[in-house]
Amino acid sequence: VTHPAVGRVAPAHRRSPGAPPRPAADPGDAAAAVSTVRIAVDLLGGDQAPDVVVGGALQACGSDPGLHLLLVGPPEVTDAAVRALDRDTRDRLDVRTAARVASPTAAVGRNPDTTVRAAVRAVTEGYADAVVSAGPTGATVTAAALGFGRWPGVRRPALVVTLPTLTGRPVVLLDVGASVDAAPATLAGHAVLGAAYRSITGAGGGRVGLLSIGTETGKGDRVRRAADPLLAGLSLPGGATYVGLVEGHDVVLGERADVVVTDGFTGNVLLKGLEGAYDLVRDRLPGEHPPRAAVLLGVAGTAVVCHGAAGPADVASGIGLAADLHRTAALGALAALLPWAAPPPPPTSEVPHD
Amino acid sequence: VTHPAVGRVAPAHRRSPGAPPRPAADPGDAAAAVSTVRIAVDLLGGDQAPDVVVGGALQACGSDPGLHLLLVGPPEVTDAAVRALDRDTRDRLDVRTAARVASPTAAVGRNPDTTVRAAVRAVTEGYADAVVSAGPTGATVTAAALGFGRWPGVRRPALVVTLPTLTGRPVVLLDVGASVDAAPATLAGHAVLGAAYRSITGAGGGRVGLLSIGTETGKGDRVRRAADPLLAGLSLPGGATYVGLVEGHDVVLGERADVVVTDGFTGNVLLKGLEGAYDLVRDRLPGEHPPRAAVLLGVAGTAVVCHGAAGPADVASGIGLAADLHRTAALGALAALLPWAAPPPPPTSEVPHD
Repeated sequence: VTHPAVGRVAPAHRRSPGAPPRPAADPGDAAAAVSTVRIAVDLLGGDQAPDVVVGGALQACGSDPGLHLLLVGPPEVTDAAVRALDRDTRDRLDVRTAARVASPTAAVGRNPDTTVRAAVRAVTEGYADAVVSAGPTGATVTAAALGFGRWPGVRRPALVVTLPTLTGRPVVLLDVGASVDAAPATLAGHAVLGAAYRSITGAGGGRVGLLSIGTETGKGDRVRRAADPLLAGLSLPGGATYVGLVEGHDVVLGERADVVVTDGFTGNVLLKGLEGAYDLVRDRLPGEHPPRAAVLLGVAGTAVVCHGAAGPADVASGIGLAADLHRTAALGALAALLPWAAPPPPPTSEVPHD
Repeated sequence: VTHPAVGRVAPAHRRSPGAPPRPAADPGDAAAAVSTVRIAVDLLGGDQAPDVVVGGALQACGSDPGLHLLLVGPPEVTDAAVRALDRDTRDRLDVRTAARVASPTAAVGRNPDTTVRAAVRAVTEGYADAVVSAGPTGATVTAAALGFGRWPGVRRPALVVTLPTLTGRPVVLLDVGASVDAAPATLAGHAVLGAAYRSITGAGGGRVGLLSIGTETGKGDRVRRAADPLLAGLSLPGGATYVGLVEGHDVVLGERADVVVTDGFTGNVLLKGLEGAYDLVRDRLPGEHPPRAAVLLGVAGTAVVCHGAAGPADVASGIGLAADLHRTAALGALAALLPWAAPPPPPTSEVPHD
């Protein structure tokens, strides 16, 4: 009942032999304190691209001396961005030319000329370590699934965010937009991905709940009623346990679950609703809002999707998130927790020895 | 692709010949300033029933001198409630005995012994004007659909709430829990109900949006993609216009739509998520939360569903909402706006002349 999963399963190797050596940090430089990470940034993604994206990219550079950016966009945009920089920042930027904006509604989006496809290709070819886009979610997910390949056993990739809660225990919510029309088996896959993600980023031992409209067994729509017993039968990674059905408020209260599983339609509506709720009280709670950057789980590469309405600070935060994930080899560690199959080798910054 | 709609279509008459005369207000009394309205209250509905419900009922009585309540519950509960009252309040209470709690998960819930079924029956028999329950939504919807009958042309009833927004224009959100697994045609029906409701309660001329995960045509899951052109082809009541797809934040911002249409699963998750967001900032915004009482649209009687976690003030507010709807003959006015068929006669407080 779902669309065929897009994207091949990841092969064992994903770095092209011709990949360049990564820039070496000068040992006498402050940058040596942090390891270098190279992020491909889709300049045309987002409602206010390219200005907001360029602004966010520069902001990220300013706060992370180990950051190198590969700006992906049309020549006039990359040229203008580079011209505006001081020499120090310019030394940490490269550009890759791609001119087409990804379509928000193309079902498959196999057009290889879009900026997001070019940014993913930069990673697969070894010119960058991770990709960040504030463009249409579907286009980014498709580009990543096609370019990186899906992890073995992953039916549908999922976008995950970590939300602050009333109890202080953050809640991992997935999917927030990658898998609309999710089948029960897709939700079971999300539960495994979410538990593994919680395990590598949080305190471990997560309680995994299935988002529904009541907590009693049997509550929910057809998909939830079928998924509930599937999730109950899973052996979840990282010592996580399935706690049954949870409700919308549990995503922000944090009392009943640490990982909340849902389909990409419901999760996206909920996340944007929460964002609106914060906007509603913005005058009294300035600066607070749910995360505007989501991590794509289930593909053999690091991809961060920023909110289309992201501001420069949000884009910078998304770039920082991608950098953290790469530096901690998070997605490789996550893949190693998945029960389905021997995971692909974790992402590495090493250049193959020829 | 949906379950068969529950409940008969409403007949032309719904008041039994043996119905009692309604209590007459003493002309010398302060109560004469407001018209009398009789609300049947399900004492066993809600997470903290009966205490919270009894407390809410008495609170409502205290603030509305025209209110008469019919408390529906087991004898020991109704007896205790009545014993605790002063004489004046006791004069405005009646009791009806029913002992069974409605099941939260029974698919159809035809058991006539539940308190919510008995409360609905009190309305159909002419002993009350409206019903209020904080019990399981599905049980209340089923009881109302079976007892009152659906309006001609209504495929699935919908629960509607009115939310405060950033722009100050309230947003009508439906469905928040009655129609899980809604087909595109059900969403079209909700659009008509929502536009009519907005017309009778708001400023009219509402902008009707379909809740999705992006605003471009084609965004969303299968149901949304099929519903979008259906809604675009509707002739909406009250001068409303369809504005296309809207997103989660639009429900609280109010910039793009006045009526937001969705299925009961998504709407319930979103509403509870918003409630959680308010809880998250409760220490800084005390007392604010989304509405905890929803009106059931599409059945030939007035029914208000309170949140299962409703407190006494929420139950009182739900009773007040039901009283307002009855006093303004709101649902009859709404039915008269529906394009499908000649509406049933509007609810009336008149006792038939024999």
